[in-house]
Amino acid sequence: MTDLSTPAGSTPAGSTPAGRPALLGQNQYGKAENRVVRITRDGATHHIKDLNVSVALEGDMDDVHYSGSNAHVLPTDTTKNTVYAFAKEYGIESAERFGIHLARHFVTSQEPIHRACVRIEEYTWERIPAAGGDGPRHSFVRKGQETRVARITFDGERWQVVSGLKDLTVLNSTHSEFWGYAKDKYTTLKESYDRILATDVSARWRYGWTGGEESMPEWDASYERTKEHILRAFAETYSLSLQQTLYQMGARVIDHRAEIDEIRFSLPNKHHFLADLSPFGLTNDTGDGAVYLAADRPYGLIEATVLRDGAEPGIPAELTLL
Amino acid sequence: MTDLSTPAGSTPAGSTPAGRPALLGQNQYGKAENRVVRITRDGATHHIKDLNVSVALEGDMDDVHYSGSNAHVLPTDTTKNTVYAFAKEYGIESAERFGIHLARHFVTSQEPIHRACVRIEEYTWERIPAAGGDGPRHSFVRKGQETRVARITFDGERWQVVSGLKDLTVLNSTHSEFWGYAKDKYTTLKESYDRILATDVSARWRYGWTGGEESMPEWDASYERTKEHILRAFAETYSLSLQQTLYQMGARVIDHRAEIDEIRFSLPNKHHFLADLSPFGLTNDTGDGAVYLAADRPYGLIEATVLRDGAEPGIPAELTLL
Amino acid sequence: MTDLSTPAGSTPAGSTPAGRPALLGQNQYGKAENRVVRITRDGATHHIKDLNVSVALEGDMDDVHYSGSNAHVLPTDTTKNTVYAFAKEYGIESAERFGIHLARHFVTSQEPIHRACVRIEEYTWERIPAAGGDGPRHSFVRKGQETRVARITFDGERWQVVSGLKDLTVLNSTHSEFWGYAKDKYTTLKESYDRILATDVSARWRYGWTGGEESMPEWDASYERTKEHILRAFAETYSLSLQQTLYQMGARVIDHRAEIDEIRFSLPNKHHFLADLSPFGLTNDTGDGAVYLAADRPYGLIEATVLRDGAEPGIPAELTLL
Amino acid sequence: MTDLSTPAGSTPAGSTPAGRPALLGQNQYGKAENRVVRITRDGATHHIKDLNVSVALEGDMDDVHYSGSNAHVLPTDTTKNTVYAFAKEYGIESAERFGIHLARHFVTSQEPIHRACVRIEEYTWERIPAAGGDGPRHSFVRKGQETRVARITFDGERWQVVSGLKDLTVLNSTHSEFWGYAKDKYTTLKESYDRILATDVSARWRYGWTGGEESMPEWDASYERTKEHILRAFAETYSLSLQQTLYQMGARVIDHRAEIDEIRFSLPNKHHFLADLSPFGLTNDTGDGAVYLAADRPYGLIEATVLRDGAEPGIPAELTLL
Repeated sequence: MTDLSTPAGSTPAGSTPAGRPALLGQNQYGKAENRVVRITRDGATHHIKDLNVSVALEGDMDDVHYSGSNAHVLPTDTTKNTVYAFAKEYGIESAERFGIHLARHFVTSQEPIHRACVRIEEYTWERIPAAGGDGPRHSFVRKGQETRVARITFDGERWQVVSGLKDLTVLNSTHSEFWGYAKDKYTTLKESYDRILATDVSARWRYGWTGGEESMPEWDASYERTKEHILRAFAETYSLSLQQTLYQMGARVIDHRAEIDEIRFSLPNKHHFLADLSPFGLTNDTGDGAVYLAADRPYGLIEATVLRDGAEPGIPAELTLL
Repeated sequence: MTDLSTPAGSTPAGSTPAGRPALLGQNQYGKAENRVVRITRDGATHHIKDLNVSVALEGDMDDVHYSGSNAHVLPTDTTKNTVYAFAKEYGIESAERFGIHLARHFVTSQEPIHRACVRIEEYTWERIPAAGGDGPRHSFVRKGQETRVARITFDGERWQVVSGLKDLTVLNSTHSEFWGYAKDKYTTLKESYDRILATDVSARWRYGWTGGEESMPEWDASYERTKEHILRAFAETYSLSLQQTLYQMGARVIDHRAEIDEIRFSLPNKHHFLADLSPFGLTNDTGDGAVYLAADRPYGLIEATVLRDGAEPGIPAELTLL
Repeated sequence: MTDLSTPAGSTPAGSTPAGRPALLGQNQYGKAENRVVRITRDGATHHIKDLNVSVALEGDMDDVHYSGSNAHVLPTDTTKNTVYAFAKEYGIESAERFGIHLARHFVTSQEPIHRACVRIEEYTWERIPAAGGDGPRHSFVRKGQETRVARITFDGERWQVVSGLKDLTVLNSTHSEFWGYAKDKYTTLKESYDRILATDVSARWRYGWTGGEESMPEWDASYERTKEHILRAFAETYSLSLQQTLYQMGARVIDHRAEIDEIRFSLPNKHHFLADLSPFGLTNDTGDGAVYLAADRPYGLIEATVLRDGAEPGIPAELTLL
Repeated sequence: MTDLSTPAGSTPAGSTPAGRPALLGQNQYGKAENRVVRITRDGATHHIKDLNVSVALEGDMDDVHYSGSNAHVLPTDTTKNTVYAFAKEYGIESAERFGIHLARHFVTSQEPIHRACVRIEEYTWERIPAAGGDGPRHSFVRKGQETRVARITFDGERWQVVSGLKDLTVLNSTHSEFWGYAKDKYTTLKESYDRILATDVSARWRYGWTGGEESMPEWDASYERTKEHILRAFAETYSLSLQQTLYQMGARVIDHRAEIDEIRFSLPNKHHFLADLSPFGLTNDTGDGAVYLAADRPYGLIEATVLRDGAEPGIPAELTLL
């Protein structure tokens, strides 16, 4: 062990910041991005679950910040080990169930830990169809569409489960207009009565379930139905603004999924500009064969929450940060 | 203009969600990632400012969500134009000043807009030294180290400025230990009395300035000093945990920079594992010539706020989201 | 126009590098990453093609390098305009056909241009199923699986078309072994008789077609069948090494697709390590419920070409570079 | 061990592709992206080398592809172990020297291996200045500018060393024009007599050294001088085209660095467009205070080799691939 005589500027181990004006505020720690894959076998038919699990713990952590005493700190390496061990012990029925096992464990087994937040990304795999249709079934190709996400929080008494998805890219090639907007001296945009509407859907929805007596939602079924409602609402809304489309997507989920109390979207407006081909004697309007430039940056960014009447908002406003 | 008869499932323009259980919650919109570069000339000496500016506006926006009426919506295209026009009209003295000009404009010039949030990334350039030292001075190389960030919020009355940096990668090759931690049945980590401590610093600090009578901080000088304090505290702390180092970095800023009331860090623990070379008859301890594996995932993630005594926290807990 | 008196160190316009030992070698230029989307309409049923097109031109370009004379340089901005204009004029039947139109144009219309190389990425979209199944059909969701690529080269006489795909992630949860390998003093790996085999397939195949009398392949059908052969060969090969699987994938394409003379793969071995759960009293073998760590770096990287007997190799060895 | 009876479609172990038209072409394998960090200590002053090392081996590898026999295959896991062991045994004097040790080892110690190619990325760290200037010196901040790269190839007889850099972003705010170019019916670009010229320099240079009697270049000094020549030539060239600037950068290296025979550049033209502010009554020309939009895609891409008179080209044309 090294000499603990500390260089100038550091706080000696064990000291408190007496008289110092700098106080510890909200804090959390854990192991992020544990990539865990579980294969289950039903004879020659295999099943796969593929997760990226991040754990964040809160509690009585003044000492480790003020003095470097780790007595209350369960190492992040241990939280990693627990993720893999629980995948074996409990299996992975759904991302949400798995996160609930983990969050409960940390809060109930470590006295200094008062709150656990488990974040999970899930990647979907499809089967590679076998030749005759009845060969071995252990071959998969990654679906590659949206990433499913879940955040499970437990404070020892109440649960909060926020599920969602990201990077679900959708496009309507018509039934989108944009006109009648406010104008000021910096406004040059032409009104549009037929445009492409495209976005990468990032959505998070909060379940009403908080534990206790209530029965838990069927997480996988709820995810599939919610995704379907979002896609349908996007496709079926004749859009006068991306905000309107967003509301329709959210309201459809609230209307149809009683287990969900709140949903928030972050929707980049992926602009597709009609190419100006008039210098070449070509007409390029939104009729048949229209050619668009797909732009990267800048992009409109539309964010909003849709809430069930009477529900308190619980999803943080900032799904994405600079 | 197209026929407005809407397909099933959409809400006719102008309607309200009467009787519908889905209510609009917090919402904002604007143009994100406007990449603006401004060159100023002082004879043959040029200066460069290179920003990525995102605007988010809030206000009386029920109609656009419920019915698609855009009457209150200043187009995101207009917010983009304003960014470029203001860079010309006001110049870019600092990211914070520029954001203040923009945020004030949107809130004070558009009645339905009640709150504006401007986020800015700034990229730093260094001069390429001229041959004799006195040639033309219009050549730059991007510094490439950290990215400076700022978030300016104005609600018509009060200002909040949160500045910061991200992707500042630092490493101590010694003076870091980790031992004396809590252990449970999933703990296998060996205690360490000499390890590498490395992280990508992401920090956000909130200024006490809220407008009104107070004089504004000197934003650029404050940034430079704050970055220096963070680096010094990292270097000079004999670390018993990354949490302790985090607190020392934050406390040093609070101690020395009176204009800052709060600072939050998100610090991934970039693990460097001693390579196990014993199978090859090689000793690889932390003495001279130690060889490490730099790991990607998983990584410890340590997040905390350090507050000036008496200050209310104002930086959201989640600088990064899954 | 500015004064052309040039500062020390630059070559005056029009000069040649007489006596200078530095000669121009292979060179090419053009506009990269033109993002073009084309919508065609068949009544209420829309179709989408979504490409990323890069153009590189070669020819008599000594002057522009040696002296800055642009007389032979068709601006990259013009190559961009041509991409969008051709999307309107010729449509986008397939990535390969579209590239052939473009490459022919540049070589035949600009005397100094002797060779054109067009690279294309294509993104696939699926329809969002309408409610009743017979509503409007203008809504799409990006498939998100592999990216299709094509490189079309024309030198005025002969054509070379190399098509392919990238980021097709596949996994076999069994039927993979690795043993009987060479061992030296640095070998510690344990032999494995049942492991996960996973990779991100990057493949490029060269068509025998070089223009002239021969009829052109059916590009889209060829792509679909080739992808299917690759997936099937991956799934059906009982693998003793990733090299063996690679060869089987390539050979199956050569066996079944007469229009293809050569195929090259770059296959990262995406390692999945069995989690060591023995410290926790858990058995984690490759039987039911096995738990794996999916690793990022380092990874094995297996690259090889499979050639039709008698064909000359034409795909560069380095699909990926550091 | 599992049953080796293979499913339909795979080749039984040990077989050759007799009669099959699919032959193995160029192939290589190895472990990619080994992240190795080495700390050396000179009292309280530490030094750091931070590399990303990829190994690719070629040789007598027909069997492993045709039949899955691994008898000639040194596992990629062993190449990884060797990287870490050699970092201990030989140290890391420079990326090139380290690669030479590794490449020689694989070719000379494994009979079936006939050629080894080692690719290295190096990340640069700066010291964090200590308080009094004479404290401990074990604290570093990553410089974050360009990434240094090297590729060392050995076939048992001759060496080829290609070094280089990537992601070195440079910008001239004046002294760049573009006019007098070829025009066709798709040309709309306006000529420019004062524009921003910016690029991310990616360069690779080949050393004349091939082993044998000649003495080895001083790799680190050569790198530093070459980078400086590239920056100086960029800054000092009054540019009429990016091609001209490219040639000047390359020629200056060939002129001044006798150890280098060839250099190739891939230079994206990072377009900065003058913002059109005329709709707002603002003049935005290239005089003082000009405001630009920094564009992402598409971008011009200029690639060329500059060769020493009499040298044979040896750097592959495609530094970047789609």
